[in-house]
Amino acid sequence: MKRHFDVAIVGGGIIGSSIAYYLAKEGISVLMLERDKVASGATSAAAGMLGAQAELEENDAFFRFAKESQTQYVSLNEELRKHSGVDIQLVNNGMYKVALTDNEAVSLKQMAAASIEMDWHSRDEVNFLEPHIANNIKGGLHIPSDGHVSPIHLCTAFSKSASLLGASLLEHTSVHAVERNSPSDYTVKTSAGDFHCQSVVITNGTWSGYFLNQLGLDNDIVPVKGECLSVTSREVYLSSTIFHNHCYVVPKGDGRFVVGATMVPDDWSMQPTVGGIHSLIEKIRPVFPKIDSCNFQESWAGLRPQTRDGRPYIGRHPSDENLYFATGHYRNGILLAPQTGILIRDLIMKKRIKSEYIEAFRVDRLLEVKA
Amino acid sequence: MKRHFDVAIVGGGIIGSSIAYYLAKEGISVLMLERDKVASGATSAAAGMLGAQAELEENDAFFRFAKESQTQYVSLNEELRKHSGVDIQLVNNGMYKVALTDNEAVSLKQMAAASIEMDWHSRDEVNFLEPHIANNIKGGLHIPSDGHVSPIHLCTAFSKSASLLGASLLEHTSVHAVERNSPSDYTVKTSAGDFHCQSVVITNGTWSGYFLNQLGLDNDIVPVKGECLSVTSREVYLSSTIFHNHCYVVPKGDGRFVVGATMVPDDWSMQPTVGGIHSLIEKIRPVFPKIDSCNFQESWAGLRPQTRDGRPYIGRHPSDENLYFATGHYRNGILLAPQTGILIRDLIMKKRIKSEYIEAFRVDRLLEVKA
Amino acid sequence: MKRHFDVAIVGGGIIGSSIAYYLAKEGISVLMLERDKVASGATSAAAGMLGAQAELEENDAFFRFAKESQTQYVSLNEELRKHSGVDIQLVNNGMYKVALTDNEAVSLKQMAAASIEMDWHSRDEVNFLEPHIANNIKGGLHIPSDGHVSPIHLCTAFSKSASLLGASLLEHTSVHAVERNSPSDYTVKTSAGDFHCQSVVITNGTWSGYFLNQLGLDNDIVPVKGECLSVTSREVYLSSTIFHNHCYVVPKGDGRFVVGATMVPDDWSMQPTVGGIHSLIEKIRPVFPKIDSCNFQESWAGLRPQTRDGRPYIGRHPSDENLYFATGHYRNGILLAPQTGILIRDLIMKKRIKSEYIEAFRVDRLLEVKA
Amino acid sequence: MKRHFDVAIVGGGIIGSSIAYYLAKEGISVLMLERDKVASGATSAAAGMLGAQAELEENDAFFRFAKESQTQYVSLNEELRKHSGVDIQLVNNGMYKVALTDNEAVSLKQMAAASIEMDWHSRDEVNFLEPHIANNIKGGLHIPSDGHVSPIHLCTAFSKSASLLGASLLEHTSVHAVERNSPSDYTVKTSAGDFHCQSVVITNGTWSGYFLNQLGLDNDIVPVKGECLSVTSREVYLSSTIFHNHCYVVPKGDGRFVVGATMVPDDWSMQPTVGGIHSLIEKIRPVFPKIDSCNFQESWAGLRPQTRDGRPYIGRHPSDENLYFATGHYRNGILLAPQTGILIRDLIMKKRIKSEYIEAFRVDRLLEVKA
Ligand SMILES: Cc1cc2nc3c(=O)[nH]c(=O)nc-3n(C[C@H](O)[C@H](O)[C@H](O)COP(=O)(O)OP(=O)(O)OC[C@H]3O[C@@H](n4cnc5c(N)ncnc54)[C@H](O)[C@@H]3O)c2cc1C
Ligand SMILES: Cc1cc2nc3c(=O)[nH]c(=O)nc-3n(C[C@H](O)[C@H](O)[C@H](O)COP(=O)(O)OP(=O)(O)OC[C@H]3O[C@@H](n4cnc5c(N)ncnc54)[C@H](O)[C@@H]3O)c2cc1C
Ligand SMILES: Cc1cc2nc3c(=O)[nH]c(=O)nc-3n(C[C@H](O)[C@H](O)[C@H](O)COP(=O)(O)OP(=O)(O)OC[C@H]3O[C@@H](n4cnc5c(N)ncnc54)[C@H](O)[C@@H]3O)c2cc1C
Ligand SMILES: Cc1cc2nc3c(=O)[nH]c(=O)nc-3n(C[C@H](O)[C@H](O)[C@H](O)COP(=O)(O)OP(=O)(O)OC[C@H]3O[C@@H](n4cnc5c(N)ncnc54)[C@H](O)[C@@H]3O)c2cc1C
Repeated sequence: MKRHFDVAIVGGGIIGSSIAYYLAKEGISVLMLERDKVASGATSAAAGMLGAQAELEENDAFFRFAKESQTQYVSLNEELRKHSGVDIQLVNNGMYKVALTDNEAVSLKQMAAASIEMDWHSRDEVNFLEPHIANNIKGGLHIPSDGHVSPIHLCTAFSKSASLLGASLLEHTSVHAVERNSPSDYTVKTSAGDFHCQSVVITNGTWSGYFLNQLGLDNDIVPVKGECLSVTSREVYLSSTIFHNHCYVVPKGDGRFVVGATMVPDDWSMQPTVGGIHSLIEKIRPVFPKIDSCNFQESWAGLRPQTRDGRPYIGRHPSDENLYFATGHYRNGILLAPQTGILIRDLIMKKRIKSEYIEAFRVDRLLEVKA
Repeated sequence: MKRHFDVAIVGGGIIGSSIAYYLAKEGISVLMLERDKVASGATSAAAGMLGAQAELEENDAFFRFAKESQTQYVSLNEELRKHSGVDIQLVNNGMYKVALTDNEAVSLKQMAAASIEMDWHSRDEVNFLEPHIANNIKGGLHIPSDGHVSPIHLCTAFSKSASLLGASLLEHTSVHAVERNSPSDYTVKTSAGDFHCQSVVITNGTWSGYFLNQLGLDNDIVPVKGECLSVTSREVYLSSTIFHNHCYVVPKGDGRFVVGATMVPDDWSMQPTVGGIHSLIEKIRPVFPKIDSCNFQESWAGLRPQTRDGRPYIGRHPSDENLYFATGHYRNGILLAPQTGILIRDLIMKKRIKSEYIEAFRVDRLLEVKA
Repeated sequence: MKRHFDVAIVGGGIIGSSIAYYLAKEGISVLMLERDKVASGATSAAAGMLGAQAELEENDAFFRFAKESQTQYVSLNEELRKHSGVDIQLVNNGMYKVALTDNEAVSLKQMAAASIEMDWHSRDEVNFLEPHIANNIKGGLHIPSDGHVSPIHLCTAFSKSASLLGASLLEHTSVHAVERNSPSDYTVKTSAGDFHCQSVVITNGTWSGYFLNQLGLDNDIVPVKGECLSVTSREVYLSSTIFHNHCYVVPKGDGRFVVGATMVPDDWSMQPTVGGIHSLIEKIRPVFPKIDSCNFQESWAGLRPQTRDGRPYIGRHPSDENLYFATGHYRNGILLAPQTGILIRDLIMKKRIKSEYIEAFRVDRLLEVKA
Repeated sequence: MKRHFDVAIVGGGIIGSSIAYYLAKEGISVLMLERDKVASGATSAAAGMLGAQAELEENDAFFRFAKESQTQYVSLNEELRKHSGVDIQLVNNGMYKVALTDNEAVSLKQMAAASIEMDWHSRDEVNFLEPHIANNIKGGLHIPSDGHVSPIHLCTAFSKSASLLGASLLEHTSVHAVERNSPSDYTVKTSAGDFHCQSVVITNGTWSGYFLNQLGLDNDIVPVKGECLSVTSREVYLSSTIFHNHCYVVPKGDGRFVVGATMVPDDWSMQPTVGGIHSLIEKIRPVFPKIDSCNFQESWAGLRPQTRDGRPYIGRHPSDENLYFATGHYRNGILLAPQTGILIRDLIMKKRIKSEYIEAFRVDRLLEVKA
C-alpha cells in the first residue's frame, strides 16, 4: 500500500471529495481517508439545493463566496460528466419563498426590493406557475437562479473523477490522529496504519471538532440533525422548490419530491424519529396541502456540522502552515463545495486568494489560540 | 409444462398458500396461479396478529372458527418448520385493548366480565407490565391468548412446504377466466395458456370480485386499503400488542414495532400516502407517546378484501359443486388462514364439516343467485 | 370513479405509457389499466439502450422505424421534462461492438463498410478511447449514435406527463376481458369493475398473448427472460456501451454499469437465478476483465415479449377497427416506445401513416385469422 | 449528556454488545461507543454459524472455550427474548462437512473417529437426509450440535437488552484515543467529546489494531475480507448447513440460504466484488449443484479481524489492569460472543477465571511489550 502522499484529506463527504478533485486535477498526489463509505455523512442526507439567495440574507463575503460557488456549477456539470461519466442531476428551476402571513409578505417584499435577482409574485402569479402551492398564500419571493443537484451523484462524480485522475481513496479507515513531525511532514495515524504527507486537510464534517481540539484549537463543531422524507405523485406537479419556515419541498429530476428538514441540535443519531417526521408533515401541509395525497416513499437523517457563528472554517491552522481545515458548512455544504475545493487548492498551491475570503472563513476568528 | 391438475388455485396470498399446503399434504395434485409473486397482495402488508378475541366480539360461528384457527398455530409452527425449514415467527405475548376514556373503560370491562379468557387490568397493573404504555390511560383489557406471526414468513412456509410436497406454483401468471366444461372439468385460462383441472378455488383476495361475477354470482368484494409503518428503538420496550381505536402497535420478534392501520375504502392504490401516515401517528401517540422518540423505519399499504357483511366467503359455488371460493377475509386473513385451508380441503375431499361453518361462510348468503 | 373514456389502454409498461402520453397530448380521454404498478414488467428490467444500429442488422422498414424512434429522443427529452419535471437520463456516448476473434472482426468490418454511421476501430483506437476494454480484442465497430436512457425514469416521465395532461391511470387493476358491443363501444372488464370506451389498445407485453387469443387471433407471445446485474467502481472507466455476443455493459449516468442480459425462453419467473448471473459474468469477463474488481451491486430480471418473427405487432385488429395492439417489442421496446406511441396515436386519429410501417407490424402478418 | 461511567466499551459489534449486556445485567454503568450504527462491521456480514466442531480442529483451551460459548446459546435464547423481545433466530439442525475426494473423505473419517459428537455418513446416508446435496460426493461428516443464529438479531437483542438494563449506547461517535490518568481513571476521547471511566474495553474488531498500538502493544490486527450471497428457492430443500473447502450454505429460518465466504486478506473495502461472487458460486456448485436454479437475492461483505495466530485477544493489558481487549475473533466472533462477554465481565468483577482461558487469549502471548 502506498504510504506517502502530497496531501492527506480526512473525511470523504462532499467537502473532502471536492478538494480531492481539484487537487488531483493539478497532478498533486492525494489520499482521501474515509471511515465509512464516501458520502455517508451529512452529504448523503442533503436535499442538494444551491440556495445562495434563499439561505443567505446579507450581501457580505460569505454571500459572494456562495454565489461564486453556485456559478461554478454551470461548467462543473459538463466537466465532471467528462471525467467520470456521472451526471450530477443539476436542475435550474428556481425557488419560491412563500408567505403565509402578512408579516412574512412584508419581509419577503423587502428582500425583493433589495435585489435585482429576486421578484415578489402575487398569489395569483405564484399559483399560475405553481398551481399546487396552497392558494391561500399571500404571495411568494421568486428566486430564479437557485437550482439543485443530487448530492450523492455529485459526491460520486467528484470522487470518481479524483480517483481516475490519480487520487487514492481509502474507505472504512478512520483517522485517529494527525501528528506534525516538521512543518511539511505529517503523520496521519489511522486504523489502517500510518500515512505520511506534506499537507493535511481536515474535512470530516460534524466529527471534525475532535481534530480542531487535537490540533490545538478550541473551536467547537456541533451536530444539528436534519430529518427528511421523500414522496411521489403522478397527480401533483411542482417546477420550482418551495421554501417556508426553514422547510422545503424540492422537485427532483427523478420524480421524487424531497421534503426537509428538521433542526435538532446536539443529537448524534443519524436515524429519523417518528416525532421528527410528524413535525415535518405538519409544517409543510399549510403551504403544500397536496402532500397529503402523495405517496410516502422513505425518510432519512443527517448531521449538519455547525460552528458557533454558522459559517464554515476554510483555511490554514493559525500556526501550522501545511495544516488546513474545511469544515462547518452547516446548511450549505453542497452549495459551497466547489468554491471550498478551489479555495483549499489555491491555498495549498500558494495561489493568490481574495483576502475577504481568507478573513471570512479564518479558523481562529472565534477564538484565542490555546497556549 | 404440466397442464392437468386435480385442483387449480387462483391467487397466491395467504389463503391460496394455506389451501395449497393442506391439499398437497394429502397427495392431491395442485396448481397455484399467482399474477405477481407469492405474498404480494394484502398478505404482504398484514401485521400478522392472531386476534380472535381482539377483533371479533360475539361468540358465534365466526368467532369459534377463528378460535379454532388460532389453535392450529400451536402445531403448525413446528409442522411448517419441519417441511420447509421456515420459522413463522410466532410470538404469544398477548394483547392489551386500552381505554383512554371512561366510556371505553366501561365497555372493555363488560367484555372482561363476559369472558374467562380476558381480564380487566387497572392502569397501574397495565403500567407495571408495560411501562411504556401511556400512564394516563383508564386501564386495559388483557387478552393473553392473542399472539402474532410474520405473514411473509408464514406465506413462505406454506408455499415452500406445498411446493416440496409436490404442488406447482406458477408466478407472474394472471388467471383471466374459469370455464366449466363439465361438472368436474374446468379450463383455467391464463396469460401463460390454458390449464385443466377437476376443481378450482378462487382465492385472489380483493381482486376476486371479478370471478364471483364471471361465475354467475352477484357478490361484491371491495378493497379497504390499510397503511402501516414500522419503527425501532433501543429504549422503548413493549411485550404485548397495544390496541386502541382500530389502531395497534405490534412488537415483532426482530425488534420492530409495527404500527397499523388506516381504513380507506374503495382505494385500489397499494402505496401509503403522507396523509395516511400522518393520521396513524396522530392516533397512536395518545396511547403510546414514546413513539415520538422511535426511529422511523418504513411504511407500506395493502388492500383488505371486504364482503358486504364483513365475513369471508368460504365454500362451494351454489350450483357448481367443484368450484370453491375462499375470499373476503378482510381484517383477519392471517388468523383465519389455517382453518380456511382445512375447510376447503375437507370440502374437496368430501369430509364431514361442521354445518355451522358451512352456513356462516356460504357464498350465497347475501344474494339471490342470478337467473 | 369515471367509467367512460375514449381510449382504454391495457398494461402500463413503456408501450402503454408512451401511447397514453401521445393521446393525452391531443386531448383524447385515456384510461390506462395496470395490474401491478406502472413500469413493473419488462420495462423495469431493461438496460435502456437505444440501439438501432446495434440491434437491427438490415436496412428495412423495421430498421427505419427504429431510427425514427431513436431520433424522437432528442426533442422528447426536453418535452417530457417540461411536462413532468422528470429527466429521462439520456446519454449519447455511442457503442462499441467488440470483436474477440478474427471471424467477428470480419463480420463487424463488413457492417462498418456498409454504413456511413459506423466505423471500424483497430484495437489501439478502441483502447485509446476505452482503456478498460480488454486489450487483446481484435478491434471494434463504433456506433456513435446509439445512446441510452433510464427506462424507469422514461416510464415515469411518460406516465406522469400523461396524468398531468388529463389521462387516468389505474394501478393494481387487472384487465380480464375486452368485449365488443358495437364497432365503437367496448367494455373492458377488470378486477375493479367494467369500463366503457370507443377504442382499446392492448399493450400488456409478455402477457398479451391471452388477449390476442381472446380477441380471435391465433398469435403467440412468448416470454424470453433476461437477467441483469449492476456494478460500480471508482477505478474503472467506460464512456460508451460495450457489446459482445448479445451481452453488454452500459455505463449509466449515475455511476452504475449495467451488465446484461441472459436469454431464457419460456420462463415466466421474474427473478434472476444464480446460474444466470454466473453465466453473465463468464460471458462479459473476456471483453471487460476489469469487471472482476468492480463492486457487485444488485441483480434483477424481466420478461421480453417475443413474437414468432421477433418484430412487434403494432396496428389494428384485422376485423375490429377500433381495437389496437402494440406488443411483442422483444429486445427493443425502449428504443421503439416513442414511435410506437405516435403510430398508435395516428391510427386512432385516422392520420396518414407510412404504409411500410403498417405492413411491417400488421398483427395478422403471421397467421390465418380464425374462422 | 452523562460523561462518567464505570466501563467504556469501544466498538458496537457483537463483541462490544455482548460485553455491554453481561455488565449491565450486573448493574455496572456502561457506555458503548460506536462510530457507525451498532452491528455495522463484521457482525453485519456474518453467516451466524455456531460452528465449534466445524471450525476448530484440536481439543485445546480454544476449543473448550468455544464449546462453552456454544452451550450458552441454549439459555441465552430465552433470556434475551425476555429482556428485549427479540428472537435471535436460533436453529439447531447441525452441519455436514462434505467430502468430494477420497483424500477429503479420509481426513473427515479420522475426525469422526476421534470425536463422540460427530459421525461419518456415507453418500447414501447424506442424500437420504439431504437429497439436494450433490449425489457424487464421497460422504460427509455429520456434526449434529452445530447450529446457527442471525447475527443482526443477536446483536440487536444484546444491545437492546443492555440498553433496557441501563447501559448507554452512543452511535455515530468515533473513539480516537484512550488516555490513562491513573490506574482506575481513563479519559476516552471521542468525536463527541471526552468521557471518563474506571475501565475501558477495546472491542472494535478489524479496526482495533490502532488501539493496541496506541496503548503500547505491538500486536497486529489485519482484515480478512469475506463476501457472501443469499439465495432463495421453493424447490430446493436443505435442513443442515453444508460445508466444503471453507465455503458453506446455511439454511436460514426465513427461507434464505446464505452462501459464504471468500477470504481476501488485507483488503479494507466492505463491498463484494464481481470476482469474489463469481469465485463463491464456482466453489459451491460442485457440492450443491441445485444452486444454479436458486434465485439470486443479494450479496455483501465484511472484514474479519485476524490476529497473527488466528485466536482472539481476550484479556487485560499487560501493565494496565483496568484496560481490556476483546478483539481478533476472526471467523468465530458470533460463536464466541457469549463466552467473551462473560470472561470480560468476570475479569472486570475480579471473579475467578479458568487459567487456561487467561493463558490462551492473553494479549501479550505473541509479543515483547514495547519498552
Ligand atoms: C437534512 C439535510 C439537508 C441539507 N440540505 C442541504 C442543501 O439543500 N444544500 C446544501 O448546500 N447543504 C445542505 N445540507 C448541508 C450539507 O449536507 C452539509 O453542509 C455537507 O454535506 C457537509 O459536508 P462535509 O463533507 O463537510 O461533511 P459530511 O458529509 O458529514 O462528511 C464527513 C465525512 O467524514 C467522515 N469521517 C468522520 N470522522 C472521520 C475520521 N475520523 N476519519 C475518516 N473519516 C471520518 C464521515 O464518515 C463522513 O463521511 C443539508 C444537510 C442535512 C443534514
Ligand atoms: C394493513 C393490513 C393489516 C392487516 N393485519 C392483519 C392482522 O394483523 N391479522 C390478520 O389476520 N389479518 C390482517 N390483515 C388482513 C389480511 O392481510 C388479509 O385478510 C389476507 O392477507 C387476505 O389474504 P388473501 O390471500 O385472501 O389475499 P391477498 O394476500 O391479497 O392475495 C391475493 C393474491 O391473488 C393475486 N391475484 C389477484 N388476481 C389474480 C388473478 N387474476 N390471477 C392470479 N392471481 C391473482 C394477487 O396478486 C395476490 O397475491 C391485514 C390487512 C392489511 C391490509
Ligand atoms: C433484461 C432486459 C433488457 C432489455 N434491454 C433493452 C434495451 O436496452 N433497449 C430496449 O429498447 N429494450 C430493452 N429490453 C426490452 C424492453 O424492456 C421491452 O421490449 C419493453 O419493456 C416492453 O414494454 P411493454 O410495455 O410492452 O411491456 P412491459 O414493460 O412488460 O409492460 C406490460 C405491463 O402490462 C401489465 N399487465 C399484464 N397483464 C395485464 C392485465 N391483464 N391487465 C393490466 N395490466 C397488465 C404488466 O404488469 C406490465 O406492467 C430489455 C428487456 C429485458 C428483459
Ligand atoms: C463473511 C463473514 C462470515 C462470518 N461468519 C461467521 C460465522 O458463521 N460464525 C461466527 O462465529 N463468526 C463469523 N464471522 C466472524 C464474525 O463476524 C466476527 O468474528 C465478529 O463479527 C467480530 O465482531 P466484533 O464485534 O469484534 O467486530 P465488528 O462486528 O467488526 O464490530 C466492531 C465495531 O467497532 C466499530 N468501530 C471501529 N472503530 C471504532 C472507533 N474508533 N470508535 C468506535 N467504534 C469503532 C465498528 O464500526 C464496528 O461496528 C464471519 C465474518 C465474515 C466477514
